[in-house]
Amino acid sequence: MEDVKEMTADVKKNIEEKKPLKKVLVICARGTLEDVYAALIMANGALSEGKEAKMFFTFFGLDAITKAKADHLHTATVGNPAFMRSLPTMVGGLPGFEALASHMMKQEMDKLDIPPVTEFLEMIEAGGGEIYACKLAADMFHIKKEDLVDEVKDIITVGQMYDLAEGDGVQIIYV
Amino acid sequence: MEDVKEMTADVKKNIEEKKPLKKVLVICARGTLEDVYAALIMANGALSEGKEAKMFFTFFGLDAITKAKADHLHTATVGNPAFMRSLPTMVGGLPGFEALASHMMKQEMDKLDIPPVTEFLEMIEAGGGEIYACKLAADMFHIKKEDLVDEVKDIITVGQMYDLAEGDGVQIIYV
Amino acid sequence: MEDVKEMTADVKKNIEEKKPLKKVLVICARGTLEDVYAALIMANGALSEGKEAKMFFTFFGLDAITKAKADHLHTATVGNPAFMRSLPTMVGGLPGFEALASHMMKQEMDKLDIPPVTEFLEMIEAGGGEIYACKLAADMFHIKKEDLVDEVKDIITVGQMYDLAEGDGVQIIYV
Repeated sequence: MEDVKEMTADVKKNIEEKKPLKKVLVICARGTLEDVYAALIMANGALSEGKEAKMFFTFFGLDAITKAKADHLHTATVGNPAFMRSLPTMVGGLPGFEALASHMMKQEMDKLDIPPVTEFLEMIEAGGGEIYACKLAADMFHIKKEDLVDEVKDIITVGQMYDLAEGDGVQIIYV
Repeated sequence: MEDVKEMTADVKKNIEEKKPLKKVLVICARGTLEDVYAALIMANGALSEGKEAKMFFTFFGLDAITKAKADHLHTATVGNPAFMRSLPTMVGGLPGFEALASHMMKQEMDKLDIPPVTEFLEMIEAGGGEIYACKLAADMFHIKKEDLVDEVKDIITVGQMYDLAEGDGVQIIYV
Repeated sequence: MEDVKEMTADVKKNIEEKKPLKKVLVICARGTLEDVYAALIMANGALSEGKEAKMFFTFFGLDAITKAKADHLHTATVGNPAFMRSLPTMVGGLPGFEALASHMMKQEMDKLDIPPVTEFLEMIEAGGGEIYACKLAADMFHIKKEDLVDEVKDIITVGQMYDLAEGDGVQIIYV
């Protein structure tokens, strides 16, 4: 009986012990350069630590996995008071400024060896990550499978997305 | 003893097995048309899959459950470079353009049978979802229970919101 | 044997019972007044309920823990249609308006006894919360440890951030 008590105690201990994070499901619903990179970095960081990573792109986030747009995302300068604080907000709206800000941000990222979006998606897929597009958003923006980068595994519903979050030690991160 | 060993092993296996997602707590803190719909779709998608869904509206997200504003939310055109990429950002700021963009987005959603916000909230409540407003945000914007749509179950604190996230297989999704 | 059966049943029951939320890891990736306060309120609300709270500031969210900027965050008026709905979006871009809106929001928060950002960070640290900065973002914006408020425990990688989310009853909240 002692033996059994220890066993159940052991099971109990296992339950109470620090459980590692095993998987992240990153939902990317925004299409600005900074939000898309944040989502990619969250997913890639998990893969680097030996965790699973699934990505679900929806709403304006779809741009990040659309062939024609993935490498042409922009920074949200207008309406983003955190960007270039010293300039009056209006300046952010001047034609050309947003392109300049996006260019500067891309340069900084390049210096830190952060790859362009399409390369980043390839890296994530090569690292075992899975990339999905949202069916509802694809329908809304009239986007088809062939418009999306090759790394996209499938176009799935929100319900199917929730299936990806099954298991223990899973976190949904909505960027 | 063998019998017991199997039992504990069984318990252990249950713990390690894929646990389904059982509940989502969707926090909606933003008031743009796209963010509010994303939150509603996340909650509704969970309900459709037989999961529980709780919603907590806070900060500008309160607009989505405020009688006077729920069906008059706007798209964030300015500062959202993902929207209408081909137009210079400035155009987004021209009076009337935002209304046009919001109208177009609503039309696309209508085509996909996505209901107006107030109907969507009714649907979620009818499907077993629970809708809450944030006390702090309500105080900050001077909003009272009677200003909110009838589907709002209660105005609660952030601490009470965390109680909604109790249990196994729960995910907080902050939109 | 009955005794053992009860024990394993008991373990099983514990597993299936409502597990309390024990810890939140709040990721703050945006630098607007409302997003930063939302993140602080989420973390502080958890601490008030006797839960653990860790905070990870990244991308523009870094501003919130940067000495020179923490108490000078602005509201995103332009591109935020939920703010001051009655005014045309353009007005949000007029010089001075954003400062006025930020001032008004700060006043409302002051009335509700919500402290300035730096005081809020002190409160969270005093309450047992832990505040971290993102290494990648710090590198990107050329920010060093001495530029950050004293409450920042460390500058860590995304991988190290995920270690903070270990354990049972943990939620990552990405603001």
